[in-house]
Amino acid sequence: MTILNSTAEQRDRANATAVAAMLESDPALVDVLPALEALPGMTRNTILTSGAPLAWSEYAGGQRRAILGAALYEGLARTAEEADALLHSGEIVVRACHDYACVGSVTGVTSASMPVWVVEDAASGRRGHCLVYEGSDRERLTYGVWNAKVHRRLLWIREVLAPRLAAAVRSAGGVRVNPIIRRALGMGDDLHSRNTAATAVLFHHLFGPIIDVNGYDEATREVLAFLSQNDLFFLHVGMATGKCIAEAAVGTPHSSIVTAMALSEKEFAIRVAGTGERWFRAGIPALDAKLFDGITADDIAFMGGESLITETVGLGGLAAAAAFSLQDYSGGTAEGMVETTKAMYGITHAEHPLWKIPFLGFRGVPFGIDASLVAATGVTPRIHMGASLREGGHAGAGLLIAPEEPFREALAVLEGRAVA
Amino acid sequence: MTILNSTAEQRDRANATAVAAMLESDPALVDVLPALEALPGMTRNTILTSGAPLAWSEYAGGQRRAILGAALYEGLARTAEEADALLHSGEIVVRACHDYACVGSVTGVTSASMPVWVVEDAASGRRGHCLVYEGSDRERLTYGVWNAKVHRRLLWIREVLAPRLAAAVRSAGGVRVNPIIRRALGMGDDLHSRNTAATAVLFHHLFGPIIDVNGYDEATREVLAFLSQNDLFFLHVGMATGKCIAEAAVGTPHSSIVTAMALSEKEFAIRVAGTGERWFRAGIPALDAKLFDGITADDIAFMGGESLITETVGLGGLAAAAAFSLQDYSGGTAEGMVETTKAMYGITHAEHPLWKIPFLGFRGVPFGIDASLVAATGVTPRIHMGASLREGGHAGAGLLIAPEEPFREALAVLEGRAVA
Repeated sequence: MTILNSTAEQRDRANATAVAAMLESDPALVDVLPALEALPGMTRNTILTSGAPLAWSEYAGGQRRAILGAALYEGLARTAEEADALLHSGEIVVRACHDYACVGSVTGVTSASMPVWVVEDAASGRRGHCLVYEGSDRERLTYGVWNAKVHRRLLWIREVLAPRLAAAVRSAGGVRVNPIIRRALGMGDDLHSRNTAATAVLFHHLFGPIIDVNGYDEATREVLAFLSQNDLFFLHVGMATGKCIAEAAVGTPHSSIVTAMALSEKEFAIRVAGTGERWFRAGIPALDAKLFDGITADDIAFMGGESLITETVGLGGLAAAAAFSLQDYSGGTAEGMVETTKAMYGITHAEHPLWKIPFLGFRGVPFGIDASLVAATGVTPRIHMGASLREGGHAGAGLLIAPEEPFREALAVLEGRAVA
Repeated sequence: MTILNSTAEQRDRANATAVAAMLESDPALVDVLPALEALPGMTRNTILTSGAPLAWSEYAGGQRRAILGAALYEGLARTAEEADALLHSGEIVVRACHDYACVGSVTGVTSASMPVWVVEDAASGRRGHCLVYEGSDRERLTYGVWNAKVHRRLLWIREVLAPRLAAAVRSAGGVRVNPIIRRALGMGDDLHSRNTAATAVLFHHLFGPIIDVNGYDEATREVLAFLSQNDLFFLHVGMATGKCIAEAAVGTPHSSIVTAMALSEKEFAIRVAGTGERWFRAGIPALDAKLFDGITADDIAFMGGESLITETVGLGGLAAAAAFSLQDYSGGTAEGMVETTKAMYGITHAEHPLWKIPFLGFRGVPFGIDASLVAATGVTPRIHMGASLREGGHAGAGLLIAPEEPFREALAVLEGRAVA
C-alpha cells in the first residue's frame, strides 16, 4: 500500500464522500442463507471469528472453545483434539468475519452451514451478513460455550428456524431496515444492547409471511415463539445492516471515517475508509459492566465481538440518549446517557437524516466516526456491549470506552507520518 | 348526602387508604362482551356518552351526532329525526359512561350491542369497561361521525373482531395489564396519546391464542392486521384498566383523591373518592394542540372524552417524561415533558411501585391526584388528549391544563364549607 500523505482538505472532502455513500444506503433484509452460499470466498473448512485476526495458537479462551465447537458442528473433526491439530496444520482455517462481508456477535464464530441474514442495499447490490440470533440462553456458541444443548439449538436454527425465516423474507419481497431502526429509536432502543422495540417491529413485518408461507404447524409456532420471546433477536439483523452500510465507505482514498471496530479476545481494532482492510490494533480497556446477579468482575473475560458495527453506524453507545431503559440492564444514569451521545457529536461527521433521538428534539444520531476528530479531541467512541463469563456464557452488559491509539495510528498512516 | 366536615388529618388517612386500594389492583383483561351483557344496569334503549351528564337538548355537536348514530345503529329509530324525538321523550335515554363501570373515548358513545373490553381485578372482582378501539380512520363514531363507512366498520368490530378477541382472551385465561403498562412505559408510551409499545406487547400475548382458537382464515388475518396496524389499539384496554383501578377508591369517606376526570362537549368535571358519584364541573380551557396538516384551530371543537382516566391513574400527561416521541404527534419539548411530570409529583399522593419512568431513574409515575394538593398549590393535572374536528373526525393531539375550580369545590364540600 502506498503512503497517502493526505492533507486536511483532501481528508475533509473524502470524509464527506464516504459518509454520503453510507447515508445513501437503503438496506433491506432479503434472505437467510447458509454462510457457505452467502459469503463471498467462504469454504467448507473456513471458520470465521470476531476481530482483527490472530494466529490459531493465540486464541485461548471463549473464541478458542467456540472455534473448536464449530469444527465439530461442521463434522470437520471428530474430537476437539483432532480439530486443534487441523487448525494448527491449516487444514481448517480461521479467518476474520469482516473479510467475508460479515460481522459476528461476541466470539462471532460462523461456519459453513450456519445460516446468516442477508442484508442488501438495492441500488448498489452491496451486502452485509450476520448469523441468525442464537437465543437468550446464557449458554451459546456466541458466548463461548459448546455442549450438547448448544448443538441441539444450532441444529434447530439451521433446520427449522432459518428455512422458515428465509421463505418468509423472500415472500415478503424483503424488509427495509431503515424504517425499523427509525421507529425503534423512538421506542427506547439503542439498537445494540437494547433491541426490544426493533424486534417487535420486525415481528409485525414477518409473522404474516411466516405463517402464510410455512403453514401454522408446530414448527411455525416454535419459530413465532422464538421471535416474540427474544428481545435481542433484531440485533443480528442490525449488525448485518451496519456492515452493509459501513462497506459503502471502504476504500475511499484519504478518508478517516471509521468503517469497522472489532474485538478479539486480546485486541480492540479499527479500520478507516482510506486504508482499506488494514487493522489498527490496541489492547482492550476495562468494561464498565452491570453483571447479572451472583457474577463478579473476576468471573468475566473478553471473547471478542463485532456488534460494535452498530456504533460504527451511529447506534449503540452513540445513540445512548434514545435508550434510557438500558439503566436497568447495563447500568449508568439518564444524564450520563445524554452526555455520552452529546460527546459523540464531537467525533462524528454527520447527523443521520432518518434515525433520530426523541429526547434531543429528534436530532439525528451522531453518524460517521472520524478518526481525525478522535485524534484531535481525545474523545473516543462509547460502546454498549455485552459481558461474557470467562468459562462461557452471557454475564451482563456495560459501557466500553474505546482506546485512543488505533485512531491516532490510522490518522498518522493517512497523513504519511507512519508506514502505510 | 351529608356534610362531611373532614379534617386534614382525616383526609390524609383516607387518602392513604384510597391510594393503597387503587395500588392493590391487579387488573386483567378477561373478556370482550356486548355492553348490554357486560355493564351493570345497561338496557337496550340506553346510550352512554362521555362526561358529567347533560340534558339531551344540551348536546349540539359531535356527541349529539354520535348519540343519534348509535340510536340508528341499534335500530331504536329509523331516522335521525325519529331518534331525536325518542331522545326528547325519554324513550331512548342518555347516561354517563362512568355510572355504568365504563369509560368512553372522545364522544364515548356506547350502546347495547357494541362490544366492550372487560378488565377485572381478580381479588375484588371489580370490573372496568371500555369499547374496543374503532380504528385509526379519521372518521369514526368516537370522533362524532356517523355514515355508511362508520356503520360497516362498527358491524365488522361487532361480528368479526370482538368474538375472535373474546375467544382468544378467554382461552389465554386473561391477560394481566400491569406488566404490559410497565413494559410500555420503558418503551416510550405515556399510555394515553401514545400506545405504540403497549399495543405491540398486547399483540405478543394475543396473536397465538387468536390463531389457535379461531383458525387462520381470512377473518383472522383481518383481525391480526387490525391489531398490528393500529398503534392506539391498546388505549381502550388501558382506559378500562384505569376505570377498574380508580373504582377501588370510590366512596372512601373524607378522601380527596380524584376518581374520575371527564369531558362533555361543554364541561370538564371530576369526582373525588369522598363524595362518591357527585360531579364537580367547570368550563373547558383551550387545548394546546398540534393539528394534522391542513387543519387550523378554527376547525376543532370539543366533543367529550374520558381517556383522562389514564391521567387519573398516573399515566398520560402525568407520565409525559416517559414518552418523548410524543413531540412528533402532540408537540411540546422533551424538557417540557420532564417538567410536566415533575410538577405532577406535587399534586399526587404516591409513586407507582411498578409503573416507572426510565428518564427519571425509574422513579414511579406520580399516582393518585389529590384535590387538596391541587387546591393548595394551584397546579392542576396536565392531560394528553386528542383533538377533534368540529364537523367530526380526528384532528391531532395536544396538552390540556385542567381548570382549578372543580378541585377547589370538591375540597370545599369535603371540608363542609359548601353544600354537599
